[in-house]
Amino acid sequence: MRPENVEMMKARARNIALTVAYDGTNYHGFQRQTPPVVAVQNVLERALREVCGETVELAAAGRTDTGVHAYGQVVNFFTDGRIPTERLPRAVNGLLPPDIVVTGAWEAEREFSARHSATGKAYVYRLEQCTAPNPFTRNYAWQIFHPLDLEAMRAALAMLVGTHDYSSFRAAGGAPMSPVRTLDEIRLTEEGSGRISCYLHGNGFLYHMVRNIMSTVVNVGLGRISVERFGEIFDALDRRFASPTAPACGLYLLSVDYDERKDMTL
Amino acid sequence: MRPENVEMMKARARNIALTVAYDGTNYHGFQRQTPPVVAVQNVLERALREVCGETVELAAAGRTDTGVHAYGQVVNFFTDGRIPTERLPRAVNGLLPPDIVVTGAWEAEREFSARHSATGKAYVYRLEQCTAPNPFTRNYAWQIFHPLDLEAMRAALAMLVGTHDYSSFRAAGGAPMSPVRTLDEIRLTEEGSGRISCYLHGNGFLYHMVRNIMSTVVNVGLGRISVERFGEIFDALDRRFASPTAPACGLYLLSVDYDERKDMTL
Repeated sequence: MRPENVEMMKARARNIALTVAYDGTNYHGFQRQTPPVVAVQNVLERALREVCGETVELAAAGRTDTGVHAYGQVVNFFTDGRIPTERLPRAVNGLLPPDIVVTGAWEAEREFSARHSATGKAYVYRLEQCTAPNPFTRNYAWQIFHPLDLEAMRAALAMLVGTHDYSSFRAAGGAPMSPVRTLDEIRLTEEGSGRISCYLHGNGFLYHMVRNIMSTVVNVGLGRISVERFGEIFDALDRRFASPTAPACGLYLLSVDYDERKDMTL
Repeated sequence: MRPENVEMMKARARNIALTVAYDGTNYHGFQRQTPPVVAVQNVLERALREVCGETVELAAAGRTDTGVHAYGQVVNFFTDGRIPTERLPRAVNGLLPPDIVVTGAWEAEREFSARHSATGKAYVYRLEQCTAPNPFTRNYAWQIFHPLDLEAMRAALAMLVGTHDYSSFRAAGGAPMSPVRTLDEIRLTEEGSGRISCYLHGNGFLYHMVRNIMSTVVNVGLGRISVERFGEIFDALDRRFASPTAPACGLYLLSVDYDERKDMTL
């Protein structure tokens, strides 16, 4: 958004926050693209424009990549539109395609920013162990055709908990921000029928960090990287030692934390 | 298939049967369509032609409708192609899009027909109870936004077990074949997180029968139709009393029974 737009938008009466779930399969990520390329933001803004009677500009907590999904993305926008907040989700959902759903809304403080006010985030990465390709999960999990040693994976993941420099798992050529983050919880869970999910919660994540962690941890599970070697890769603070980025389709933005938040869920 | 084609195909050396799983979302049903309309059969036959080095014609156990899925569709075809049967699944899968997967193959007796030799079939119909639309299951389950009384649904479904005239649940205007079938097992199962699946096994199913049963049973679960009234609808032998056909996306052809079968699974 250009700076003059930001000021214009902020002069509006209300700052509204929405929680949004979407299947990222058919979108070029969250962040607005130039048509005919379509991102989730394009579609959401178009629906909100109709409901609010004016052009709106969204800010999002996380700019998910192409093919990445969200259960609980959070966005905010300024509007003079008068629709009651509790009616917004259903009104917007009536205009949205079925792969994007507004699941909640609240009227936020003026200074609230979905992006900058976030104090933490949770992601889920889904794996599926299968003997043959599963056509039903091809866009929703990373399918693995060999046995995974979950205990080895858990031992590797346990090293990541705490406050660390995650340079080994940041995208190559990423922005020069601090690579230090705090991950306070990581859980690898078997959900039956070969489904495995990895839950990660932290105060922030570097670009591609979850997918680079997962690719390397899966190689631990496959016995290609030892747990000890995983520790060395983590300590090296160098992206070149970790495995190639894991598929986007396994990643879900689960939720975003704010100090204050009053969802009005559907 | 024209009769002269059938004879030509039957002169070929081998009769090969395949088990196939597919996500029906992007296909106009199983049965071959005239391009640009694409059915699962079009795509499978194109891949098999490459692998076998000649045009093949598939016969399928069940002609699933647009949007209906399969875990275990069975097809057969005649070929002079020499690829070893155990290598067929991987060879064909290399040419198929990821929403269609050949999961097994076996060389059948000459008189075997995936369609006419079937002695039974099993379907699963998936429901999801949710408070808001779930973008991830929109093509894979019938989403229900009100509480379902599963015990009432089970009581209704129990009436259907046995050998009966299922005219009340057959498609209007269906072919004039006997409406009598035997359903020997029906199970309604809660799978957690609002997911509910209904398993139905029988010696055969009328066109739209599972979807017409499910729509009416869901209305029982919602309290719109009493269990007693459900019995009256079943006894009426008249399609006009049952509910409108349930969505295709909830239906899965699970498996097909044959007297003899030796799968060579992947």
